[in-house]
Amino acid sequence: MRKVKIIAGPCAVESEEQIVCIAKELKKIGVNYLRGGAFKPRTNPESFQGLGDKGIEYLLKAKEITGLAIVTELMTIDQVKKYADKIDIIQIGSRNMYNYELLKELGKHKCKVLLKRGLSATFEEWISASKYVNGGKDVMLCERGIRSFDNTTRNVLDLQTIPYIKEKTNYEIFIDPSHAAGNKYMIEPMSLAATVAGCDGLLIEVHNNPSEALCDKNQAIDIKTLKSIVDKIDELSNTKLIYKYNKKSIKEVK
Amino acid sequence: MRKVKIIAGPCAVESEEQIVCIAKELKKIGVNYLRGGAFKPRTNPESFQGLGDKGIEYLLKAKEITGLAIVTELMTIDQVKKYADKIDIIQIGSRNMYNYELLKELGKHKCKVLLKRGLSATFEEWISASKYVNGGKDVMLCERGIRSFDNTTRNVLDLQTIPYIKEKTNYEIFIDPSHAAGNKYMIEPMSLAATVAGCDGLLIEVHNNPSEALCDKNQAIDIKTLKSIVDKIDELSNTKLIYKYNKKSIKEVK
Amino acid sequence: MRKVKIIAGPCAVESEEQIVCIAKELKKIGVNYLRGGAFKPRTNPESFQGLGDKGIEYLLKAKEITGLAIVTELMTIDQVKKYADKIDIIQIGSRNMYNYELLKELGKHKCKVLLKRGLSATFEEWISASKYVNGGKDVMLCERGIRSFDNTTRNVLDLQTIPYIKEKTNYEIFIDPSHAAGNKYMIEPMSLAATVAGCDGLLIEVHNNPSEALCDKNQAIDIKTLKSIVDKIDELSNTKLIYKYNKKSIKEVK
Amino acid sequence: MRKVKIIAGPCAVESEEQIVCIAKELKKIGVNYLRGGAFKPRTNPESFQGLGDKGIEYLLKAKEITGLAIVTELMTIDQVKKYADKIDIIQIGSRNMYNYELLKELGKHKCKVLLKRGLSATFEEWISASKYVNGGKDVMLCERGIRSFDNTTRNVLDLQTIPYIKEKTNYEIFIDPSHAAGNKYMIEPMSLAATVAGCDGLLIEVHNNPSEALCDKNQAIDIKTLKSIVDKIDELSNTKLIYKYNKKSIKEVK
Repeated sequence: MRKVKIIAGPCAVESEEQIVCIAKELKKIGVNYLRGGAFKPRTNPESFQGLGDKGIEYLLKAKEITGLAIVTELMTIDQVKKYADKIDIIQIGSRNMYNYELLKELGKHKCKVLLKRGLSATFEEWISASKYVNGGKDVMLCERGIRSFDNTTRNVLDLQTIPYIKEKTNYEIFIDPSHAAGNKYMIEPMSLAATVAGCDGLLIEVHNNPSEALCDKNQAIDIKTLKSIVDKIDELSNTKLIYKYNKKSIKEVK
Repeated sequence: MRKVKIIAGPCAVESEEQIVCIAKELKKIGVNYLRGGAFKPRTNPESFQGLGDKGIEYLLKAKEITGLAIVTELMTIDQVKKYADKIDIIQIGSRNMYNYELLKELGKHKCKVLLKRGLSATFEEWISASKYVNGGKDVMLCERGIRSFDNTTRNVLDLQTIPYIKEKTNYEIFIDPSHAAGNKYMIEPMSLAATVAGCDGLLIEVHNNPSEALCDKNQAIDIKTLKSIVDKIDELSNTKLIYKYNKKSIKEVK
Repeated sequence: MRKVKIIAGPCAVESEEQIVCIAKELKKIGVNYLRGGAFKPRTNPESFQGLGDKGIEYLLKAKEITGLAIVTELMTIDQVKKYADKIDIIQIGSRNMYNYELLKELGKHKCKVLLKRGLSATFEEWISASKYVNGGKDVMLCERGIRSFDNTTRNVLDLQTIPYIKEKTNYEIFIDPSHAAGNKYMIEPMSLAATVAGCDGLLIEVHNNPSEALCDKNQAIDIKTLKSIVDKIDELSNTKLIYKYNKKSIKEVK
Repeated sequence: MRKVKIIAGPCAVESEEQIVCIAKELKKIGVNYLRGGAFKPRTNPESFQGLGDKGIEYLLKAKEITGLAIVTELMTIDQVKKYADKIDIIQIGSRNMYNYELLKELGKHKCKVLLKRGLSATFEEWISASKYVNGGKDVMLCERGIRSFDNTTRNVLDLQTIPYIKEKTNYEIFIDPSHAAGNKYMIEPMSLAATVAGCDGLLIEVHNNPSEALCDKNQAIDIKTLKSIVDKIDELSNTKLIYKYNKKSIKEVK
């Protein structure tokens, strides 16, 4: 039985056809959650900012057709009010980790929250931020790379987050190797590394046609490559080699 | 004539008496703007989060009494809608520099915006963020220290922002030595340094009774110390020693 | 067959008895190389600086008795001249990665060199430094954690070094989880992670009596814990799950 | 009377003519020390590494002719043994700040030592390193910019080092704006900033023909620009505006 949940999908929802097509493929290969960006925070105001409400509509359509639970990023209190009860897991991106008013609003709804670590957030700040979501209820944490002095990779993937979060808190910890690397060739080895180190889930960018992706195309892998990663994770799950954490010794969160 | 605008006031508005008292003192010593925090983003959800609407009310009272223009931080779209036309300068703190939806909302109002640099924001990200505020109209930038590997000071004050912003953009650049240092003894030398390097303004935390301040008390100086700094800045302004920038060679912003 | 070389031993050689005792234990559990510090670079000049020449003598004794190849750090040109032909692998610590004159001297001898990444060295600087050792001949690289803004762990272990070094160069890449973590509980999950991601070797601090170690005692594990890690690595080696790198596409080093 | 010592000269000694010519010009404009690199640590082993012993010879010649005291970087114990008694101030570059054996050797000679801060050295590590030089005797510290996440400037110039070092230690603190900026246009404003903040000296790269400099030409200013900076520093010295530090409250160093 698979020990790690797989969240996969394109950086951005680009059309109904695209997201439904990807969802069907992901369903076939046993992915657990479909992710897709409808509201996209972009450094440059001129860049593609996502399809917005239409994007959410297409995601919900893909869910209806495939039955896959969906994950998407929201960025404002109004968006949370509007969609919190329709989305299975609401992602809060690294740019909004310190947006405490947004986190408070999330705590009023019954959605799950995937809280990404800020670009240069300390462990303490990240865990403190999580508590703005109704004391941490239904929060899952996601490491997606931190900022360093070296731009060879987009960010540095801090896998020490896995033992830290598992030993010190009761949270689930997800790893996003795609945003950390900013390239394709690091995704499989880092996914395997995170899995054997005992993470609870992976968030991987995948696209039906990576070279045409509207955003982050350098790091999007194709469905076939994802299948190969998922198969290896399933094999790893069948060994006794995945690191197991003891009952938490220090309870940071109820 | 003073070459540098002085924004001063307490980290948090604590009561009507406190803010009116400080405002009167600041008025006497020739400070240009009164700042005070009503909505306070705090790492720990248990920390004092500011007086909220009451804080704004007291600030407006202090403005009414002293005639000082006011500067305060807002954190949500709803707060902007409610207060943007009553506040002279709305501060966006470093935690919200990447909160693009909030920046877009600000662009719809006629307030000025003081955009603090994110904790680990590159120059490019900071300037790009500013453009979310109606293309950069009425934006002033504020350097408040960046995150480094050394916790001896709270942050590293990056004064190279002054020549960079003055040479590469048409923005005004303010320096906040208080948040960068996290202590009192660095504030005067860093204020003088920023002044002679040609910054447009300073943002300094001051309190009528620093040891009793409800937040950031280690870095709050008293009124008398502020007066001594302001006097030296005025003297510096009367020399020809403050660095002058040429007309911008590269226009990053219309 | 084990796919990963294991270098293990105490931070510092403390006595002949200690290092011989540890060496015998390591031999029993199938460790490939014995490491021990004789010359110790310490931030504080008052801290224990290692046994020096005596330390090397004891290491050589341990090698004679057990047949284990040895790894130790050298810090000066004179030390290299004196010991380069007696030590199997000379470690250059992160503090000396930029010590180019020392690297040049190493290139004149036939020892192997384990070049640790500098505290905040970019990939490019690290690989450039390696070329000072006779163009990179007989160099192995070792990631030991980089400096970040967060002091929760001693350093951030950058496992993306594994795919980077394996794809872009012909070097072997070793991972030192002990120095990165600065604690014991992260060592096993990070060792497994590095192994499955395809590293060539691990460097792990171990002590016969960790609580009495003369340096870095927080991160030293005991022999029994090491045995459990080594056993799991051997099991992983027997699966087909360890990531395999293709023939290098880009040759950075002859 | 000038309150700040000026060390100036080219990144590298390129020929006897060049260094003598620059020395004469610097003498005319009242510079206090001539610097020039003879042994150059370079990231890339293929880059120009300095003239070595010849470079020292030319520097000594320039000293003989102009009477200017000289400052140059040494990188090995043997170089220190050979030259420590002929050079007025020996610079230890940021790459060698952690090279404790080199620092120990310096402590055996009567030269002064200008110890640059390591690329990502904490204040504590820097001061601890200084104590390897005979307990800190005759050490002067030099801030030259630290490594950050932003490559817009070469490094971030940390001027908070000035109040920190002046309040917490008895060391002199020098500022090197040239290496921090990596460009010309930031040098004058940062030099003025450092001066008014109370630094003890400045280290500025200057070249008789910057566009032809053999290394670091982007940041080398010409003699005329240096003269304008020196004149302003002299004017600042004649005001009472330069920040004065009290007798040290905390003695970190005898």
